[in-house]
Amino acid sequence: MGMAWFGRKKEAPLEVEEVEVAPSLPEPPPLNEAGLRSMQDHVDYLLGLVEPLNPFGMGLLEAWDQVLCEDLESLVDVPAHTTALVDGYAVRAADLVDEDNQRVESMQLFDGEGRIPVGAIKHVTVGEKLPPGATAVLPSTFIALEGELARVFETVTDGEYVRSAGEHLSAGEPLMRVGEVVGARHIGLLAGAGIDKVFVRPKPRVVVVGSGEGLVEPGRPVDADQTIDANSFLIAAAARAAGARVFHIVVGSNNHAELAQHVTDQLIRADLVISTTGGRREDYEAMVQTMSGIGLVDSAQVAMTPGRTQTFGLIGEDNIPMIMLPGNPVSAYVSFQAFGWPLIRKLAGADPQRKLHRGIARTGFRSLEGQTHLLRGIVTNESGINRVAQVSRQHALSELAEANVLIVLDEQTAQVRAGESVYYWKLDED
Amino acid sequence: MGMAWFGRKKEAPLEVEEVEVAPSLPEPPPLNEAGLRSMQDHVDYLLGLVEPLNPFGMGLLEAWDQVLCEDLESLVDVPAHTTALVDGYAVRAADLVDEDNQRVESMQLFDGEGRIPVGAIKHVTVGEKLPPGATAVLPSTFIALEGELARVFETVTDGEYVRSAGEHLSAGEPLMRVGEVVGARHIGLLAGAGIDKVFVRPKPRVVVVGSGEGLVEPGRPVDADQTIDANSFLIAAAARAAGARVFHIVVGSNNHAELAQHVTDQLIRADLVISTTGGRREDYEAMVQTMSGIGLVDSAQVAMTPGRTQTFGLIGEDNIPMIMLPGNPVSAYVSFQAFGWPLIRKLAGADPQRKLHRGIARTGFRSLEGQTHLLRGIVTNESGINRVAQVSRQHALSELAEANVLIVLDEQTAQVRAGESVYYWKLDED
Repeated sequence: MGMAWFGRKKEAPLEVEEVEVAPSLPEPPPLNEAGLRSMQDHVDYLLGLVEPLNPFGMGLLEAWDQVLCEDLESLVDVPAHTTALVDGYAVRAADLVDEDNQRVESMQLFDGEGRIPVGAIKHVTVGEKLPPGATAVLPSTFIALEGELARVFETVTDGEYVRSAGEHLSAGEPLMRVGEVVGARHIGLLAGAGIDKVFVRPKPRVVVVGSGEGLVEPGRPVDADQTIDANSFLIAAAARAAGARVFHIVVGSNNHAELAQHVTDQLIRADLVISTTGGRREDYEAMVQTMSGIGLVDSAQVAMTPGRTQTFGLIGEDNIPMIMLPGNPVSAYVSFQAFGWPLIRKLAGADPQRKLHRGIARTGFRSLEGQTHLLRGIVTNESGINRVAQVSRQHALSELAEANVLIVLDEQTAQVRAGESVYYWKLDED
Repeated sequence: MGMAWFGRKKEAPLEVEEVEVAPSLPEPPPLNEAGLRSMQDHVDYLLGLVEPLNPFGMGLLEAWDQVLCEDLESLVDVPAHTTALVDGYAVRAADLVDEDNQRVESMQLFDGEGRIPVGAIKHVTVGEKLPPGATAVLPSTFIALEGELARVFETVTDGEYVRSAGEHLSAGEPLMRVGEVVGARHIGLLAGAGIDKVFVRPKPRVVVVGSGEGLVEPGRPVDADQTIDANSFLIAAAARAAGARVFHIVVGSNNHAELAQHVTDQLIRADLVISTTGGRREDYEAMVQTMSGIGLVDSAQVAMTPGRTQTFGLIGEDNIPMIMLPGNPVSAYVSFQAFGWPLIRKLAGADPQRKLHRGIARTGFRSLEGQTHLLRGIVTNESGINRVAQVSRQHALSELAEANVLIVLDEQTAQVRAGESVYYWKLDED
């Protein structure tokens, strides 16, 4: 395509004898004895090639479900003011005793505005704000009024019979940290702490491109040599569920120039491109060759089942990350969860590592040592215990629709017996 | 406000002697011995007063996370065509044997288009579509070609060495039912089944109105007699998390005419109005009186803690449902989860009953018999077991932010001991 990446000059002056070093991706991780890259190495390699998106200041409600990129602390005291817990008289508690710590006989009744004078008390009703200087409330029964004079029967100490400002939440108290997702209940907390705007990273924009000769969108008539595109819909919806803003196109062709044009046209609105195909080998190869023509590409055999063949690139002038998913729907979906999900999370500023949940295997599972096996599973909560079963259906998309987890049998695991604990990724939240 | 509900005429002719029956809400459920309405009775009463929204036809990806209101079945066969599993010869298997079920000696090689003639075979490569009429494939090794003649060494039966059309999914096979939420993986399944549009109910539009004398939005300067509005933000975010499209206004007043104007102005875009206040008794009373002026109102004392005082109305000319939440943030939030959430779900066409999950109590909990007690809790998965603990913080909004469930101690429960099973509602999904 003759595009310039990394600011490389299009025409290097011929007379210069320097060897031009072709731009390339960083050194990929080493392979294991079987010539495969471990799944975790591949995730970490890809994560090392993308950066979180720049943050925006957003109104509290707009920020819902996005990732914070500042630490937040309360701007206000809750309650905002110190108030009386009973009807009585606001007082500076220290004035109630003399130098020898003996109770004073009487205090002056003060009826003005502003700071309470030394040796004075001021009438307050329950819930009323204390005047400046007051540190406690004398219940009405602790004194007897005689005109402007109040005879004192009992004393109080600082803070007695008052609800203190900041007693529930004080200005400066930490509320949320960088990297946390702004949830519904956080929004109440932040509003109550006087915060109306927060810095969050926007939802990553993901363009899902389905391609392949004879690929047609559902709802259109399908000729004998055509295939309905399910994969790009599956992955577009999965990307949206993972928190992305999704754009979706289908290109019914394997022509390299046509594919390159469609993909580069999308780069202006893409923080990540995800490619799916109609499932045939030639569809996959056409897109890999197209990627190689417009970017720097890493192709790897990963020690996982399904999803062994993985292709990643940084494409176009702005090095937009692009992952190419395998053609089989289950392989594509599993690969999305293993690599696409972490990339979306990293772009969004969230923790990109998948959380391993633990449950109890309902039946036995077998795997190959040296491979991460990802089985479609269903977890049900029985009396507080998460029971994990495998879903196995002849129709790949029905199998996925029924599953709610991916059972993760790691490289060290050859077998899990019924009743043993087993790990899984949740598919619908994390 | 002088508005007409239920089409009631504004000026009834004076000469008519009929007693005009004032419109009213249906008979509310009976009270228990303590004069309280049970929480479930109140939910069911409110649910009986709203109807699901009208459905729309939507593109598959737009329909994500919305509730289906049609049963869906596959429009296509998957695979679409019967194809050869091996290189060989397509054949009508019945032609390979004679009337006595003995193997025939030879078949004719057919090289034309269309239906395969009786007694003929046609060359196919692996993955190729079988010609019409063919029911099986003869592997190449089962015959020897002699010009146009094929000598037959072994026979096959119908379906042998073929991948049959519809073997994974057949046209007409049920995929999803009314009331199911269209999830990410369903979208893949539906696309693959040839479905591009589905009928779903739209996300309910919820207007959250925060009101109260001296109520100000966070981020504005707060005078001594003003309160920052946290409740309406908390509930707006919770309604959004529950699947609603949310509009949000704050009215810093308790003036009835002003409140009525603000609320009625919102009815054009509301499927449900939810009212919150600054928390003072007079704020609550002002809104209840306003509601009574513009609609039919049910005020109930419900056997639950927190959230005893509940007010519901059908307001304006179109009888838009409106719930008024208690003023305390925890009471408001719990009441939203108990009554607002089910109403949003009913409007959306989803199952409106909250799902009770079961876990193991980490500590003991106490309740009052005859009351449903809803405690803020946190559930953690430990070795596959959901352990339930109570969250208790002096600051109500911090307590909510930390919780991820509401622990439900029902009317029959006085005590749950540590280690016993306990029920809860999940707050972040269901």
